[in-house]
Amino acid sequence: MSRGLNNTVSSLQRSGTLINSLIAALTIGGQQLFSSFTFKCPCQIGKNFYYGSAFLVIPALILLVAGYALRSQTWTIAGEYCICVPPPRRISLLERKLACLRFFSITGRALVAPLTWLAVTLLTGTYYECAASEFTSVDHYPVFHNISASKRKEILAGFPCCKSAPADIILVRDEVALLHRYQSQMLGWILITLATTAVLVSCCLARCCSPLTSLQHHYWTTHLCNERELFEKAAEQHSRLLITQRIKKLFGFIPGTEDVKHIRIPSCQDW
Amino acid sequence: MSRGLNNTVSSLQRSGTLINSLIAALTIGGQQLFSSFTFKCPCQIGKNFYYGSAFLVIPALILLVAGYALRSQTWTIAGEYCICVPPPRRISLLERKLACLRFFSITGRALVAPLTWLAVTLLTGTYYECAASEFTSVDHYPVFHNISASKRKEILAGFPCCKSAPADIILVRDEVALLHRYQSQMLGWILITLATTAVLVSCCLARCCSPLTSLQHHYWTTHLCNERELFEKAAEQHSRLLITQRIKKLFGFIPGTEDVKHIRIPSCQDW
Amino acid sequence: MSRGLNNTVSSLQRSGTLINSLIAALTIGGQQLFSSFTFKCPCQIGKNFYYGSAFLVIPALILLVAGYALRSQTWTIAGEYCICVPPPRRISLLERKLACLRFFSITGRALVAPLTWLAVTLLTGTYYECAASEFTSVDHYPVFHNISASKRKEILAGFPCCKSAPADIILVRDEVALLHRYQSQMLGWILITLATTAVLVSCCLARCCSPLTSLQHHYWTTHLCNERELFEKAAEQHSRLLITQRIKKLFGFIPGTEDVKHIRIPSCQDW
Repeated sequence: MSRGLNNTVSSLQRSGTLINSLIAALTIGGQQLFSSFTFKCPCQIGKNFYYGSAFLVIPALILLVAGYALRSQTWTIAGEYCICVPPPRRISLLERKLACLRFFSITGRALVAPLTWLAVTLLTGTYYECAASEFTSVDHYPVFHNISASKRKEILAGFPCCKSAPADIILVRDEVALLHRYQSQMLGWILITLATTAVLVSCCLARCCSPLTSLQHHYWTTHLCNERELFEKAAEQHSRLLITQRIKKLFGFIPGTEDVKHIRIPSCQDW
Repeated sequence: MSRGLNNTVSSLQRSGTLINSLIAALTIGGQQLFSSFTFKCPCQIGKNFYYGSAFLVIPALILLVAGYALRSQTWTIAGEYCICVPPPRRISLLERKLACLRFFSITGRALVAPLTWLAVTLLTGTYYECAASEFTSVDHYPVFHNISASKRKEILAGFPCCKSAPADIILVRDEVALLHRYQSQMLGWILITLATTAVLVSCCLARCCSPLTSLQHHYWTTHLCNERELFEKAAEQHSRLLITQRIKKLFGFIPGTEDVKHIRIPSCQDW
Repeated sequence: MSRGLNNTVSSLQRSGTLINSLIAALTIGGQQLFSSFTFKCPCQIGKNFYYGSAFLVIPALILLVAGYALRSQTWTIAGEYCICVPPPRRISLLERKLACLRFFSITGRALVAPLTWLAVTLLTGTYYECAASEFTSVDHYPVFHNISASKRKEILAGFPCCKSAPADIILVRDEVALLHRYQSQMLGWILITLATTAVLVSCCLARCCSPLTSLQHHYWTTHLCNERELFEKAAEQHSRLLITQRIKKLFGFIPGTEDVKHIRIPSCQDW
C-alpha cells in the first residue's frame, strides 16, 4: 500500500514481531480447539489437580522445547561451542558475547508460544478451575457445617462437572466458580505483566550492554543471513560439480547434455 | 480515484493518521472480542475492585509498552544515547532537540492503542461497574437502613452479577447500574476530550518550538528514511562481497558463476 | 511473503520439521476419520480388551513399519552393509558413523506417525475406554454390592455403549467414563513428555557426538540429496542411450526419428 505501511511492515518483520504474532495466534487458536475437544475434568478426589496441572504445564513445556529445537540457530551455536568436538579452538570474548546475544534472541522467540499458552489458559480459566477445585476453603458456608471432611472433598471435586445438586450447593458452586475464575485470570494478568516487564527490561539491557551499536547490529544480522544463504548456494553448486565429475568417470558423459558422442559401460569394480 | 481524494489519502498517510486509525480499530475490535469471552465479575467483597481495575489498566499498560517496543526508532534513539557504550561522544544541542522530537512522535503513536482501550472500556462501562460496585454510597436508600455494614458490602459486591434478590433491592441495583454507567461514560468522554486537546496543543507546540521550519521538517523526515534505506543497501552489498571472498577461498569458485574451471575439495581444517 | 518468513520456512524444510508436521497432521486427521467410521466397541465380556488394544497398537505398528519401508534411504543403507553381497569391501570408521547417523535420522522420521497415533488416540480416549472397561474396580459403589460377579462384568463391559440402564448405574457409568478418560489422557501426556525428552536428548547427543561440524553436516545432507538426484538422471539417460544403440543395431533406425532412410529386417539370430 503506502510507504509508511511498508516501512512499518518491514520493521515488524526485521524485529521478528510478525513471526512472533503468528506463533502467538496459532497457539491461541490451537489451545481453543484442543481444549474444546479433549479437556474433560475427571471430578474425582485426588485426580482433578493432576489432570488440570498436566493440561496447564505439559503443553507449555513441549512448546518451549519445540521452540528451541526448531530454530536451526540453536544447533549452529550448540555445534560451535560443543565440548565433544576436538580440538576446541580458541573463542574470543566478542564471539562469546555475540553467541550470548544470539542465544538470548532464540530464547525470546522460544518463550512466545509457552507464555501465550499459559496466559490464554489462565485467562480462560477452565483448567485452573479443575486443578484448584479440591483445595477451595468452604468453611464459611453454613451448608457445609454438618458434612464430613471426606464427603465435603467429594462434593468440591464434583464442582467443575456441573452435576445435579441441591439448590444451596449450586449457589456455593457458582460462587466458587467465580472465585476460581477470578484467581485464574488474576494469575494470568500477573504472568502477562511480568512477561511484558521482563521483555522490556531485557530488550533495553541487550541494546545497552550489547558489544554492537545499532547500525553494527543491523549489519551483523544481515551478514549472518547472507552468510547462510551464499554458503548454501555454493555448497549446492560445489556438490553438484563434484558428483558430475564422478558420474562422468562412471558413465562417460555429463547428465543433461544433449548430444552424447559415446557412452561407457561401467565395469563391476566401478560400482 | 479523484485527485482531491488521492491528495487527502496521501496526506493522511504522511501524517500517520491511517496507521493510527488502523491501530485504534484493531484495539476496539480486540477489546470487544476479549471482554465478551473472558470478563466475568467475581462479585465477592474485596475482589471486584482488583478484577475490574486489572482488566482496565493492565491491557492499556501492555499496549503502551508494546507501542514503544515495536517501533525500531525507539531502539535507534536508545542506542544513540545509551550510557553503557564507551566512549560517550559529544551530542550537540540540535541533535538533542531532534531526538526529543523523534521521541515525541514515537510516544504519540505508542499512546494511540492504550488510550483507545481506556476510552472503549469506559464507554462500554462493564469493567468500571465491576470495579466500583463496592464503593457505592447507598445510605439514602431506606432499604439499606436496617442492614449491617458487612452484609451491605456483600449485597453491593453482588450487584454486577444480577443474582436473584428481593424486588426492592433489584430496584436499587438498577439505579446503581445506571449511576455507574453514567460515571464510566463521563470519565470516558473526559479522557477523550483531554487526549484530543493534548494532541492538538502538543502538535502546535512541536511545530512552533521545533528547531526546524516546516520545509526543513519535511526534508529531515525524508532524510532519515533515505539514510536507513541506503545504508541497508550498502550493508547488504558489502556483506555479500565479504562472504563471496571467503567462499572462494574455501571451495575455489564464486557461487553463481556459469563456467567453473576447477573446484577445490576443502580439507578438514578449512571447516 | 517476506524474507524472514521465507528463511523460517526453508530452515523448517531443511530440518525436516515441515514433513514431520505434515505426517503428524495426516495421522491426526486419518485417526479421527478412521475411528469415527469404523470403531464400535463390541461391549461383550472378553472382547472389549482385544478390540480396543487392536485399534490402539496395530495401526501404530503398521505406521512404524511403513515409516521404515517408505524411506528409500533405509534400503540404501541396508544394501551397503549387507553381508550377503560378495565381496564385502572395507568400510571406514567415518562411513560407519555416518551410516549410524542416517539410520538414526530415519528412525526419528519413522517414529513420528506411530507416536502421533498413540498420543492422539490416548488423548481422545475412546479406544482406551473400550479396552479398559472390564477391568474397572467398582467395589466401592453401593449399587454393585448385591450383583453377582458375572453380571457385574457384563454391566461393566456394556458401559462404553451407552445402553439404557437404571439411573444409579448411569451415574456410575458417567464416573467410570470420566475416570477412563483421565487415565487415558494422563497416559497420553506421559507418552508425549517422554517422546519430547527423548527427541531433545538424542538431538543434542547426535549434534555433539557427530563426526561432522554444523557446516559439514549441512554440506553432507545436500551432497547425499544431489548425488541421488544426479545419479538417477544420469542412469536414466545412460540406459536410454544404451537401449537406443541396441535397437538401432536390431531395426536399423532410432525410435522417434521422423525421416527414416532405410530399415533393417532383423534376422533370427538377432533376437
